[in-house]
Amino acid sequence: MTVDETQSTPESVSGVSVTPLSGLGTVRWYRPEGHPSPEDASAGSPEEEQQRFDDARQLARDELERERERTAERVGDEEAAVFDAHLKFLEDPQLIEGIGDEIDAGEAAELAVDRAYGDAIEQFEGMDGLMAERADDLRDIRDRLLRLLSGGERIDLTALPEGTILLAERLTPSDTAQLDPEAVAGFATVTGGRTSHVAIFARSLGIPAIVGAGDDLLNIPEGTAVAVDAENESVVVDPDEEVRERVTAGRDVTVREERVETRDGKEIEVAANIGTTAEIDGAIGQGADGVGLFRTEFLFLDRESPPDEDEQFETYVDALEAFPEGRVVVRTLDIGGDKPIPYLELPEEENPFLGDRGIRRSLGDDAHLFESQLRALLRAAGATDGTLSVMFPLVATVDELTAALDEVDRVAEDLADEGTEYAVPELGVMVETPAAVMMAEEFAERVDFLSIGTNDLAQYVMAADRENDAVAHLHNPQQPAVLRAIRRSVEAAHEHGAWIGMCGEMAGDPASTELLVGLGLDELSMSAVTVPAVKANITEIDSTDAAAVADQALTAATKQHVTDTIDQ
Amino acid sequence: MTVDETQSTPESVSGVSVTPLSGLGTVRWYRPEGHPSPEDASAGSPEEEQQRFDDARQLARDELERERERTAERVGDEEAAVFDAHLKFLEDPQLIEGIGDEIDAGEAAELAVDRAYGDAIEQFEGMDGLMAERADDLRDIRDRLLRLLSGGERIDLTALPEGTILLAERLTPSDTAQLDPEAVAGFATVTGGRTSHVAIFARSLGIPAIVGAGDDLLNIPEGTAVAVDAENESVVVDPDEEVRERVTAGRDVTVREERVETRDGKEIEVAANIGTTAEIDGAIGQGADGVGLFRTEFLFLDRESPPDEDEQFETYVDALEAFPEGRVVVRTLDIGGDKPIPYLELPEEENPFLGDRGIRRSLGDDAHLFESQLRALLRAAGATDGTLSVMFPLVATVDELTAALDEVDRVAEDLADEGTEYAVPELGVMVETPAAVMMAEEFAERVDFLSIGTNDLAQYVMAADRENDAVAHLHNPQQPAVLRAIRRSVEAAHEHGAWIGMCGEMAGDPASTELLVGLGLDELSMSAVTVPAVKANITEIDSTDAAAVADQALTAATKQHVTDTIDQ
Repeated sequence: MTVDETQSTPESVSGVSVTPLSGLGTVRWYRPEGHPSPEDASAGSPEEEQQRFDDARQLARDELERERERTAERVGDEEAAVFDAHLKFLEDPQLIEGIGDEIDAGEAAELAVDRAYGDAIEQFEGMDGLMAERADDLRDIRDRLLRLLSGGERIDLTALPEGTILLAERLTPSDTAQLDPEAVAGFATVTGGRTSHVAIFARSLGIPAIVGAGDDLLNIPEGTAVAVDAENESVVVDPDEEVRERVTAGRDVTVREERVETRDGKEIEVAANIGTTAEIDGAIGQGADGVGLFRTEFLFLDRESPPDEDEQFETYVDALEAFPEGRVVVRTLDIGGDKPIPYLELPEEENPFLGDRGIRRSLGDDAHLFESQLRALLRAAGATDGTLSVMFPLVATVDELTAALDEVDRVAEDLADEGTEYAVPELGVMVETPAAVMMAEEFAERVDFLSIGTNDLAQYVMAADRENDAVAHLHNPQQPAVLRAIRRSVEAAHEHGAWIGMCGEMAGDPASTELLVGLGLDELSMSAVTVPAVKANITEIDSTDAAAVADQALTAATKQHVTDTIDQ
Repeated sequence: MTVDETQSTPESVSGVSVTPLSGLGTVRWYRPEGHPSPEDASAGSPEEEQQRFDDARQLARDELERERERTAERVGDEEAAVFDAHLKFLEDPQLIEGIGDEIDAGEAAELAVDRAYGDAIEQFEGMDGLMAERADDLRDIRDRLLRLLSGGERIDLTALPEGTILLAERLTPSDTAQLDPEAVAGFATVTGGRTSHVAIFARSLGIPAIVGAGDDLLNIPEGTAVAVDAENESVVVDPDEEVRERVTAGRDVTVREERVETRDGKEIEVAANIGTTAEIDGAIGQGADGVGLFRTEFLFLDRESPPDEDEQFETYVDALEAFPEGRVVVRTLDIGGDKPIPYLELPEEENPFLGDRGIRRSLGDDAHLFESQLRALLRAAGATDGTLSVMFPLVATVDELTAALDEVDRVAEDLADEGTEYAVPELGVMVETPAAVMMAEEFAERVDFLSIGTNDLAQYVMAADRENDAVAHLHNPQQPAVLRAIRRSVEAAHEHGAWIGMCGEMAGDPASTELLVGLGLDELSMSAVTVPAVKANITEIDSTDAAAVADQALTAATKQHVTDTIDQ
């Protein structure tokens, strides 16, 4: 990452706004990779170099422990586990010995660290797809040690001054979790997309954020006054009075704890998407009626073995008890070859988004995990008074749905035979494949509810990878083809007595609320931070007008026409 | 590739049958990679080793020239170009010098070749995604030289004895092109899938073939009597009388040169899919009414620069003149990051099937190629009396279609301004994304015809990579979700005055003919080899009965139910 000094400061830089929030503040750059080349370090005596290395290792240990604690508290224990792995590698005797040998041979501590870690990284890279993930951990630790050896202090992300707008090439989920929404007025990154992890964390924490801003961002200097402008999806340099007023206006939409309905009395459930129980307080604070999507993958990531049935049971009970009046919709494990899970043998695939993932794995190689997750869910449904709903991801055929429902029956029978307390929850299907849209009638006949995942649905309908910038213009839920798929699903659900919700990004876009009400959705689930704005919108909508907007949008031939229709 | 000697010969081995043809014969194994380890070679004097290397190089040159000639004649000049690249590397002075140095230093010719080529391979691998392709070429030449040094004669694939059933771990497209359908009664490979290149070549040549048979195939010994059984999709060892009769029965379906209609007089156009003009004679020989899919990618593959406008013009004129009474449907360049094209900067993508490909590239980075292809096509349409139709691949939005049609207008204006003879061909859209299904009304309003590509359509509807074995059970055009997408497209086309065809594998499956006629398709295009069987089927179909079969299949909830319906 280098700033091109010949470039002048841009007036504004466009990107993708991932929360509906704007912010105003002063630029602080975060450059965790910045350290001099190890080849340039000059060596002192072996004793001096060994002492320098030992000091750096102690500092790294302190940093990692602080970051682990902070992450466990702010995000969750599962996410914090990655720091344990880093600490283990930091104390690896073989690595420490290798570095000592290089130092004894007269090398500077920097070069010794670079070589010893470099060898280890190469070994892991050579092994296979899963162990190769470890190479990334080793790279992180090496870079941390090199930074500390060069005297570089890492910006403490937990202690940024109030009014900071943080700029960075990229932020990891762990970085983002450190940010304090009270202090950080916003952030912007060169890389990233609307559905990346950093975007999800930004929404969970309620921080204004622009991602995917491109290299132009690098030309905004430290200390500049900037606005993160959600409406125009840009970072504005030296914002004028009009921009300042706009981005600070309406920052405090009233939180409505009660359920809301349209002007003409149609109740719409407004729920929150969460990844861990640490996000529950935020969801309640924003007035969510319940949880519309509990992504259980986070329970399984960044750890050495899967969570057992009891651990999961307790997590689900916690979520249910937090919403005694509301519904909690849990999605069963949705994982594939693009996510690293060391204890699963996930295949390397040419097109992981079209591969062995979601319900396909739950009915195949991961059947044991599916069984223990269902056991935990049925037990949790029996142990509380809350309303538990369970839905299956990426279902494409009636055969798959039948197999999943049979497995629920089998687990219920086992629990009954054992005399374990349980209840069968409400059951549903995610509509995210075009096949699910085409088979929505058959699905709705067999379950209690459908939930449309617009991120994946748009990806498959448009044949456009949601994470590939080259086709980002195609991946948009306002594409008329996607709207027609949504309408078809809603009609099929209602004809067959199922309720239908939406839990993709579109559900949390306040500009789409009227359209979605008009399309007939019964529930919208979103990042907690957008709940107040969407609830406010619903109270101002007339459902007959909304239906007219939807009908008009469904005749549109282009996305622009859809956008014009809903903006009217 | 090793035979596990502890395994007994299997009774039969299942795989994927890629042609509707069966065959009976004797096993001949093709093991092009078999050569001893270079480390085991003992060195003679440098003079002897140099002579051995020179002899091997001469033999390799002879082999390559024979294979190039054969491929040019049997498949096409474009495919043959890969052998020119190999010949160039074989004569590379730097490589020859490097090998000479190793030999002078006392090494055996084998080790010298292995090291010099190994260094070059490593360099190319280190460069980038495109140059890395060259590493594969170098590996092929190295293996060829090592085989020749060890005295290994390559099986001459062009001169196999009559009644050969060729077994191999894999066959390259070039290998397959060498096979003589008169001599080779069939082949079977460990790897490969229904839509792989080897499968496409097998269908073009009309050779019975089972691919993706797995490692069990390795346990069938040389010289065994076997049947390639298309009906049961297996290789049967020591087939009994019943199997022998079945696989040799009905081998000569009558070729109908005339157009065919159903019993009640509905005419269905039956056309052939081709990749090169070398396949035209085969298509005519099988009685194809015309070409329903001319895949133009083959014109652009395996060469150092794109074909120019004149070269393309001549190719398209050749195809049109071969079918003076029939239609020739040309698909514009359909390429993406999963295919190597050295002169294009194709991106490496996480999910290439959901990436920058097809019309997306033609309207973006490959606009110059799109323009020259359209110029060649419009000129060809003006230069002959044949009926040219041009269709665009992977269209997902009306905006893309509008941009493509505008480009046709612009090219026509340029040609008119230049005074060049041209005509605007019939224009159409491939229906292969779910978005195209949802927007079929808008597409049909704007073009003359639609053509359903079932391979890609099934892939995107089911969210299942067509080349990923783990999800092969989902990727099937008889999935009810895919049938419903087909029906929706047909209805939209006919409501808006467009004709609609199908050019995926399903069109050439004789078991699906009645269903497809019932769904209302006007044209079916397929590998030439299946044209006679499909034409025969059509003459026996009553279109009212067929419509009833289709209606019933559309109510099916599962693929099994669809299969049962059409098998009745």
